[in-house]
Amino acid sequence: MLIHLNGALVSAAEARVDPADRGLTLGDGLFETIRARGGRPLRLAAHCARLRAGADVLDLPVPVSDEALGRALEETLEANAVTDGVLRLTLTRGPGPRGLLPPPQPRPTLLITAAAAEASSPSPIRAVIATKTRRNEHSPLSRCKCINYLDNILARLEAAKRGADDALLLNTAGRLAGTTMANLFLVIDGVVVTPPVADGALPGVIRAEVLAAAGAEERSLKPEDLASASEAFITNCLGIRAVVSVDGAPIGDGRPGPVFEKFRAIP
Amino acid sequence: MLIHLNGALVSAAEARVDPADRGLTLGDGLFETIRARGGRPLRLAAHCARLRAGADVLDLPVPVSDEALGRALEETLEANAVTDGVLRLTLTRGPGPRGLLPPPQPRPTLLITAAAAEASSPSPIRAVIATKTRRNEHSPLSRCKCINYLDNILARLEAAKRGADDALLLNTAGRLAGTTMANLFLVIDGVVVTPPVADGALPGVIRAEVLAAAGAEERSLKPEDLASASEAFITNCLGIRAVVSVDGAPIGDGRPGPVFEKFRAIP
Repeated sequence: MLIHLNGALVSAAEARVDPADRGLTLGDGLFETIRARGGRPLRLAAHCARLRAGADVLDLPVPVSDEALGRALEETLEANAVTDGVLRLTLTRGPGPRGLLPPPQPRPTLLITAAAAEASSPSPIRAVIATKTRRNEHSPLSRCKCINYLDNILARLEAAKRGADDALLLNTAGRLAGTTMANLFLVIDGVVVTPPVADGALPGVIRAEVLAAAGAEERSLKPEDLASASEAFITNCLGIRAVVSVDGAPIGDGRPGPVFEKFRAIP
Repeated sequence: MLIHLNGALVSAAEARVDPADRGLTLGDGLFETIRARGGRPLRLAAHCARLRAGADVLDLPVPVSDEALGRALEETLEANAVTDGVLRLTLTRGPGPRGLLPPPQPRPTLLITAAAAEASSPSPIRAVIATKTRRNEHSPLSRCKCINYLDNILARLEAAKRGADDALLLNTAGRLAGTTMANLFLVIDGVVVTPPVADGALPGVIRAEVLAAAGAEERSLKPEDLASASEAFITNCLGIRAVVSVDGAPIGDGRPGPVFEKFRAIP
């Protein structure tokens, strides 16, 4: 496997990240997961826009243009003979001395990996509501795809222990925010709804497309709203999947519904 | 400089962290900052206990015994000819494939660096209250020294922009939780008080010692309480420093006070 590291393709087995990289020591960075088809990254402009919005929040310079990013992503696909797959782009603030304050002239680390698409897995999801942690809607990081993913990891581990496929995260006010790796949509009284970004929902790229395509509405949602949903589904760049139960209680009739079927092909 | 990486001392310039390390890609790890004197790590048992408590929360195996950790820390000091200094220990879940769920048999990364102590800097601190983010007391991570440090970095950047030395973080309920890198103590009506861990305070090693030595009390604190404090100071393993103003308003008479002077030598 070859990876793109700071502008060059290198063997993954030999690629070296500096142990002083602030991504590793402080979680000081961002990432994007990008679907690729036909050897090209999909929705490049939307991913670049989110990356730059996150970099603004972090005061982190993005060392390359969107065009150069696009080329690096394509080169990574080509070097690994991946046409249909998934790209992961990681941007950290690079190495730094001890302490929280970034160096005045950071040398960011830009890392891109590619993997072939897994066998398409449209299997419906049985979810739980995470009890061990909450998403912090009071932090601007809830609106950035940053590499501080431990709350999501804790919730995902809890889901696995409880025999579920994924976990829904509540925000600190007890509202639904999304799952550990996707945005959440419900269909309530025929209206497609999704938690607002202000409630801690990540501004997902596919979320935005489904919002537009479905004429959906951003609305604060409580766990009790799941009982009145006829459908639930989750979205990210890797796909749209139906949620058929939460904490053991079926959503609607416990099967993927017509709104899901209508939009499942978007990603 | 030599660093301790997975059991061996290697040149920092050559030490290689795998780009697939979950510490780098997901912030999946913990750290400790440990004061060293006379070539030995101080308060090793307390640091090991906190590391293991965090590892329990993360479901992360600690690959070595406390004794082996102590030896590795001493070797790192010796290899760098540091007797009086600071050690940083980072433990991540190691490399993993795509996705949040950890590999079933993780190979954790253990990284130790040493630096000589900076010229002792007991200078008093002018602080601000961070407005851009909040600490999430609803997450068990608020009680772990994990490498998801971006909220702290955002607050530290805000402090720098506002011409301050550090920032106090509020929790999501508006209570004082601590600073970006230290625990907070106030003296109110002659009583030494500090935010409880339930409010998002990190269970600091020096915090515990000051709590015991000062007969201090854990108490939820609001920003308004700063106005009635005769003193404020912050503690971490690198030292105890007086806070002489917050958001431009002096604490007490705006000078380091007698309680600070009594305990400043603890670390």
